[in-house]
Amino acid sequence: MRVSIIGLGLIGGSIALDLRRNGFASSILGVENNSEHEKIALERKIVDEVVSMEVAVNNSDIIILAVSADVTVKLLPQLLDKVNNQIVIDVCSIKRKVCDSVSAHPKRQNFVATHPMAGTENSGPKAVLEGLFENKVVVFVDKSKSGKMAVDTIAKMFKGLKMRIISMEVEEHDMHTAYVSHISHLSSMALALTVLEKEENKKNIFDLASGGFESTVRLAKSSSEMWTSIFINNSDNILVVLDEYIRQLSKFKISMEASDASKIESLINNSNKINKILK
Amino acid sequence: MRVSIIGLGLIGGSIALDLRRNGFASSILGVENNSEHEKIALERKIVDEVVSMEVAVNNSDIIILAVSADVTVKLLPQLLDKVNNQIVIDVCSIKRKVCDSVSAHPKRQNFVATHPMAGTENSGPKAVLEGLFENKVVVFVDKSKSGKMAVDTIAKMFKGLKMRIISMEVEEHDMHTAYVSHISHLSSMALALTVLEKEENKKNIFDLASGGFESTVRLAKSSSEMWTSIFINNSDNILVVLDEYIRQLSKFKISMEASDASKIESLINNSNKINKILK
Repeated sequence: MRVSIIGLGLIGGSIALDLRRNGFASSILGVENNSEHEKIALERKIVDEVVSMEVAVNNSDIIILAVSADVTVKLLPQLLDKVNNQIVIDVCSIKRKVCDSVSAHPKRQNFVATHPMAGTENSGPKAVLEGLFENKVVVFVDKSKSGKMAVDTIAKMFKGLKMRIISMEVEEHDMHTAYVSHISHLSSMALALTVLEKEENKKNIFDLASGGFESTVRLAKSSSEMWTSIFINNSDNILVVLDEYIRQLSKFKISMEASDASKIESLINNSNKINKILK
Repeated sequence: MRVSIIGLGLIGGSIALDLRRNGFASSILGVENNSEHEKIALERKIVDEVVSMEVAVNNSDIIILAVSADVTVKLLPQLLDKVNNQIVIDVCSIKRKVCDSVSAHPKRQNFVATHPMAGTENSGPKAVLEGLFENKVVVFVDKSKSGKMAVDTIAKMFKGLKMRIISMEVEEHDMHTAYVSHISHLSSMALALTVLEKEENKKNIFDLASGGFESTVRLAKSSSEMWTSIFINNSDNILVVLDEYIRQLSKFKISMEASDASKIESLINNSNKINKILK
């Protein structure tokens, strides 16, 4: 298959590495308007060539749109305008706005909305990793609106990355990712801001940051461009979860104010239940 | 040196392993009233023998009190009542209540208040790890209230564990640990509660929990006994930080409600600064 990847960041670049390695892609063209990213992608042989959008579209069987949600929503209809039989996929962690942007498009069947649930706190082509997707889940969203051939081809592609495929409707997907991914990022970013605000002596943060803090705050290193776009475009779901999160924090607050040890213990015991699910 | 360890959990047990390995301890006695923990500690040769408190005190040069803050506050004065020249240390992550409990004790100089900043989300003697303390920081608290010989001996012991020693006054310590450790645990526990509350379909949590969620929620696996004691005994400091944390979360909330992308981006960019400090 001839593959084009628009956006040579962590996700786009890592997909390219694995599709080349496993032989799925016979050629990989890249589209990238950040010249530094272009340079790194070529140096690391992430793509064969960096070309214009037109050249990419005309020389591909599959076009992977791997850019932020905002840019995805803008580019996706333009891409579908240009394709004949090519398949286009996106990889955003929010889906309603993306799917809405092409819901009435005559080429809607050529588009498969996917969300490979993998990543790190790093971004850009320097952060690409072989095997990033192995044993992770990819969500196919509103699969029934895509053509069967397109879905089958993309399923084969993700199975080649050793991913497990699940299906969801768009609203279900955006709500679930708000719960298990978007709120984690918010929680981590607010934690970083709290500590930075209060700890004027930066040396102390470093000295006292044992493993616990470092892992909890890791996601605060995430790309602001990508996450602004996610928070804006999934704000209604995220706001519901954020309210619940503040409510849970307030339970701890009220219990501490009342020195209510048994209530605190019961909150912690309940939170421990996450252990059984993740193990 | 003859060492006794009261409480054979993650911290006490891991100290024992390394003091034996590096030759600092010629003998290690354990005191443990959980019979299952006693059995594991003996099987794993964490201690030579499990004995009564009296036997431990009478056959030791150093007594390490490695129990929860509540139990530390109760046992520490009793221990100092019994010692002659023995040195007693605690390893709690809160210090005011601990230091207050012996501030007027005639043997105050025999006590060194220490906080080795290391740990995992696991607890008990099954969780012990060799090298847990390597390259980590240990805080000596209110060092001037301990005898010089006692401080020097305990400093030598922690250097043997390859720890870096820093000093703080008690109020400073309890405030800083609230910022960089206690709030991380709260944030993680509340996150677990949020997701458990909202995601009735447990399978979805597992399916959608990519690496981000798992690391952010890791601390929610922590021992409720230990953390209830910390939250109760450092509540005034933790409440200040928790208010700030909720304030930072509210900034995200307000910005999302207003669809204010530039405000969200600036919040995330600010949170990214944690990167420079931790790297």
